[in-house]
Amino acid sequence: MESTVDVLGIGNAIVDVLSNVEDSFLEERGIVKGSMNLIDENQARDLYAALGPGIEVSGGSVANSIAGISSLGGTGAFIGMVKDDQLGDVFRHDITSAGVNFPTPPSNAGPETARSIILITPDGERTMNTFLGACVLLGPDQIDEDLVRSASITYLEGFLWDPEEAKKAFKKATAIASDAGRDVSLSLSDSFCVDRHRDSFRDLISSDVDILFANEDEIKSLYQVSSFDDAMQAARQDCKLAVLTRSAAGSVIVTADEVHVVEAVKIDSVVDTTGAGDLFAAGFLTGYTMGKDNASCARLGALCASEIISHIGARPRTSLKALAEENGLL
Amino acid sequence: MESTVDVLGIGNAIVDVLSNVEDSFLEERGIVKGSMNLIDENQARDLYAALGPGIEVSGGSVANSIAGISSLGGTGAFIGMVKDDQLGDVFRHDITSAGVNFPTPPSNAGPETARSIILITPDGERTMNTFLGACVLLGPDQIDEDLVRSASITYLEGFLWDPEEAKKAFKKATAIASDAGRDVSLSLSDSFCVDRHRDSFRDLISSDVDILFANEDEIKSLYQVSSFDDAMQAARQDCKLAVLTRSAAGSVIVTADEVHVVEAVKIDSVVDTTGAGDLFAAGFLTGYTMGKDNASCARLGALCASEIISHIGARPRTSLKALAEENGLL
Repeated sequence: MESTVDVLGIGNAIVDVLSNVEDSFLEERGIVKGSMNLIDENQARDLYAALGPGIEVSGGSVANSIAGISSLGGTGAFIGMVKDDQLGDVFRHDITSAGVNFPTPPSNAGPETARSIILITPDGERTMNTFLGACVLLGPDQIDEDLVRSASITYLEGFLWDPEEAKKAFKKATAIASDAGRDVSLSLSDSFCVDRHRDSFRDLISSDVDILFANEDEIKSLYQVSSFDDAMQAARQDCKLAVLTRSAAGSVIVTADEVHVVEAVKIDSVVDTTGAGDLFAAGFLTGYTMGKDNASCARLGALCASEIISHIGARPRTSLKALAEENGLL
Repeated sequence: MESTVDVLGIGNAIVDVLSNVEDSFLEERGIVKGSMNLIDENQARDLYAALGPGIEVSGGSVANSIAGISSLGGTGAFIGMVKDDQLGDVFRHDITSAGVNFPTPPSNAGPETARSIILITPDGERTMNTFLGACVLLGPDQIDEDLVRSASITYLEGFLWDPEEAKKAFKKATAIASDAGRDVSLSLSDSFCVDRHRDSFRDLISSDVDILFANEDEIKSLYQVSSFDDAMQAARQDCKLAVLTRSAAGSVIVTADEVHVVEAVKIDSVVDTTGAGDLFAAGFLTGYTMGKDNASCARLGALCASEIISHIGARPRTSLKALAEENGLL
């Protein structure tokens, strides 16, 4: 069967609340800069109360990637749970108006739509504090089998390993995609997330994952090594294809046979790094579905990441397709 | 009685939804660029559906001004109606975390918290489409008499003339402030708003308004003249003190005896003009409560306006007090 969707993303459906803080704000609360922390509703309320004015903008790691794929001209679909509330409406509006098929109906009971309170320090680094809300309601029932079979790649976020039912949904989707001869891609999401679920991730990666995305901290955590080079060597043994991102130091793409080291795209001023990895994945996966070689995929990923860090928010502000064409990458 | 609040703002409590559009989007819908249009819930839904991804950020004209006054180190309070819903929570968080006293309890029934869909064209101009929602519930009952008496200036937005009950609240507040020997300030808000309520505004201005804020279109509409100079001459006759803003052309401040022509503060790149007039008012009123001369007040207003148009959203991103101190204006 011919695929009708380039990439189906399955992930947490989250509205980001962005607020600028000084480093001391993190230190006083023992929050590790650059991490993603799960918080409950009360913690979300307390943290929000301690912050200055914010900006609300749709987020969610894989959702950001799928919006980016759509902006590049690819066909994207997304499965994720929001509630039938105002923030749920915002999430739905933003992803569908970006051209993404988002068929999952909202819940009409239970916790509110998820939000991630993202603290932006003066260096542009972001620290996430996520109340999963309605995301915990994502389960196997939301996985549309035909949609999974129709997608060239099913792309999953490691964060789905946190809510129990979402993990089941994740496994169901992985099995359907593998049986249909489709590719499965996974983002490790966060080094602390890897800490929580290392063994499961290792099993999954060696059996079912065709394309792994990880940043430097995540891949070191996965293999419990202290140097990037050690992690990279382990990934070459273990992964069919691993895409390792290193912020301003660029990316390294490894398979058993190939290693590519690709530069980051320099920009004048980093405003907000939220979504850099998500948009790198958007570019890489779009190139991959078009049959481009791995180094070209990485260059497209780097270009998309450079767009997203030049402004507030993790969804593209311009046509990534036009940007890529201007830069001779599409 | 000594005043304990510098400026009490009474206005619509609105969350802005910002989205970038081409000029053709406005033309196809017959929307006049730069205007504020009132829309109902269905129109808001249809317009939102036609838009690309957005950003949500607290707004409301006078609310923006009061947040700016607080950022300048002044004591600000705000009266306005939100519903007890997610966007209402966002509005309350943003204004209280900016240091503003916002005592008005939310409604727990009736229309949702107001939103203004702001269409930003490539020239940085903004066109507002406002669903007033819970704002129509603002009435005389919400006017805390002691709070009005405690404020050196009560600042009102012309937009309050649109919902019938808000107009009554506006009149009640004006009467209390005048009786207490306090100053009343009014922003004309929008030239179409002036068209709708010209006679009432003219009556109010010649009787009760101590400080009038208007841009070029608004003051020309008020006096139904075609040149700025004619409008300015009329304002000198009619107003105790009129602050007339002219975007990049600066501002003109007039009383019966004085005329000051003050330059705009130039910035490299205008990102979003939303809130320029609101923040000009914040600077001017703060200077006024400190006893500064009118030209100095206007210079402080121009500086605050320059900060707000350098980024998305109509609330300050930096300490305006620190910015004003750096520029020798505080």
